[in-house]
Amino acid sequence: MGKVAVEVVRGGRVESRHQVDACVVDAMATVVLAAGPVDAPVYPRSAVKPFQALPLVESGAAEAFGVSDEELALACASHGGEPMHVERVAAWLARLGLQDSDLACGPHPPLNAAAAAAMIAAGQRPTRLHNNCSGKHTGMLAVCLQQGWPTAGYARPDHPLQRTIARDLAELAGLPELAAPGTDGCSLPAFVLPLRALALAASRLATVARPALGPIGRAMRTHPELVAGTGRLCTVLMGAAPEIIAKTGAEGVFLAASPSAGLGIALKAEDGATRAAEVALLALLDQLGLIPEQAREPLAPFARPRLRDFNGVEVGEIRPAAGWPA
Amino acid sequence: MGKVAVEVVRGGRVESRHQVDACVVDAMATVVLAAGPVDAPVYPRSAVKPFQALPLVESGAAEAFGVSDEELALACASHGGEPMHVERVAAWLARLGLQDSDLACGPHPPLNAAAAAAMIAAGQRPTRLHNNCSGKHTGMLAVCLQQGWPTAGYARPDHPLQRTIARDLAELAGLPELAAPGTDGCSLPAFVLPLRALALAASRLATVARPALGPIGRAMRTHPELVAGTGRLCTVLMGAAPEIIAKTGAEGVFLAASPSAGLGIALKAEDGATRAAEVALLALLDQLGLIPEQAREPLAPFARPRLRDFNGVEVGEIRPAAGWPA
Repeated sequence: MGKVAVEVVRGGRVESRHQVDACVVDAMATVVLAAGPVDAPVYPRSAVKPFQALPLVESGAAEAFGVSDEELALACASHGGEPMHVERVAAWLARLGLQDSDLACGPHPPLNAAAAAAMIAAGQRPTRLHNNCSGKHTGMLAVCLQQGWPTAGYARPDHPLQRTIARDLAELAGLPELAAPGTDGCSLPAFVLPLRALALAASRLATVARPALGPIGRAMRTHPELVAGTGRLCTVLMGAAPEIIAKTGAEGVFLAASPSAGLGIALKAEDGATRAAEVALLALLDQLGLIPEQAREPLAPFARPRLRDFNGVEVGEIRPAAGWPA
Repeated sequence: MGKVAVEVVRGGRVESRHQVDACVVDAMATVVLAAGPVDAPVYPRSAVKPFQALPLVESGAAEAFGVSDEELALACASHGGEPMHVERVAAWLARLGLQDSDLACGPHPPLNAAAAAAMIAAGQRPTRLHNNCSGKHTGMLAVCLQQGWPTAGYARPDHPLQRTIARDLAELAGLPELAAPGTDGCSLPAFVLPLRALALAASRLATVARPALGPIGRAMRTHPELVAGTGRLCTVLMGAAPEIIAKTGAEGVFLAASPSAGLGIALKAEDGATRAAEVALLALLDQLGLIPEQAREPLAPFARPRLRDFNGVEVGEIRPAAGWPA
């Protein structure tokens, strides 16, 4: 099957076009859809956060530190830096006896525009807690404390925690080992793996191939507002279709899992555009029959986003291209 | 010749890839470089602002209203909404006896992040003057006043001003007529034309095929800080290489002209990514021998942008792909 495409349309004509690679794997580990070069390696970026949270549950650290479902959701999050995110991460970190200087991720303004504007208006500067990955990093620090591993240097590829995560993800992805040639925006190792292997790992999140994936998926579906934030697709999707687990990654990546259908989905916009990945994910979920009726209205702004001029008049849209695999 | 590509690289591996179509036309109207489907129509968006300013000069309105070179540069600008831009447009509009409600463009926050943050910190809301196109719109209003055309409705495709602009651009682009099937972000008609025709128009800006193109190009090169803004490529490029005229357009478009070489350049990233269009433009200008030595250092951050994590550590880059046409 060829690649799939997402079009940006203005005045009824295609203005820009995105190529998207996608792979769907079922509970038997069979590839049921492959569009594009699904055996070529991609950087999944934050789409693998649910797997990076595995040691938090499997080490016993979550239990030992009384980690709540909300905190577990934040460990899997690319959060918006809204007060609901930052306050919970700050409280969790304080409970661990740590402070934000223990986080290896650097600071950036909240992804949520209103939260970022509120900080500017209040004359505040973003801290590491506002980094969209601060929940993940706090969860990693909890594992280090529980395991007696040094917290300093926990982000380095040769730290025992990162080696554990690489082994876990390789196993779930059906790979003998996992390379991490890059560095992510939050300074953690950035893995590469074929889209097909990422979809396999997603299917194993769906089928709970390791017991700890159960509470991880449940935490994400129960607290979708903590996994991304106000008005973001992961949050709206899991809120409207709580049967689905979804996690975005930078540079146009999406991972999704359907426990009821036993399906794992991975896709990447070749050019890294999030706008394309979002439209492609929803088209794919729809094609697979995974969008419940009640979810169509809240998801409409993401499934076929309308382009407006600065007077608010509709001037175009983003849509799946004709020839989307059916 | 095939398409050219721009790569986003992390940890030495390609993470994302952009396809770019490009065309270069010389002073004899001969195509000297064509990469991609250069006969397929594209939306040039703001890249045609130098041509949309033609009636301002040719009607005599610029002379009648004492339009300065700075104001002419602003008429060709996608400005950053910085004080240097907004104050000049406001003064020009006031001199015409008009106010910002006469502008057809809607409001949006300044493109310049520092200017946008300063407005938030001061509790101010963006006005139409902050729209990156407010200088263009003010120039259009000046033409309407001079010609005795109604200012109300000047943005509509059937207004005499817009018909004049469409005729002017069609002539320069070597086309019998010009379609404007879309609406731009600033609510003006959005033209479509083949990339090859856009490059031809750019070459005619280079060779000053109509006398009014002389002062327009000179105003842009003399006041590059007004054509875009602090830290933006059009401004840095024309500041460092004042022999070149350059104008970006939304959705990954770039137009450039070299008066000394008599060359016109047009390119579009197929997916609409500005980050790709910028790298492609500089690679193309370099290939054509149009980057002077003293411009290399100021242009380096645009020619091969470095990616950094939020701790400021370099983790990748954006670069022309191997096989860039040479």
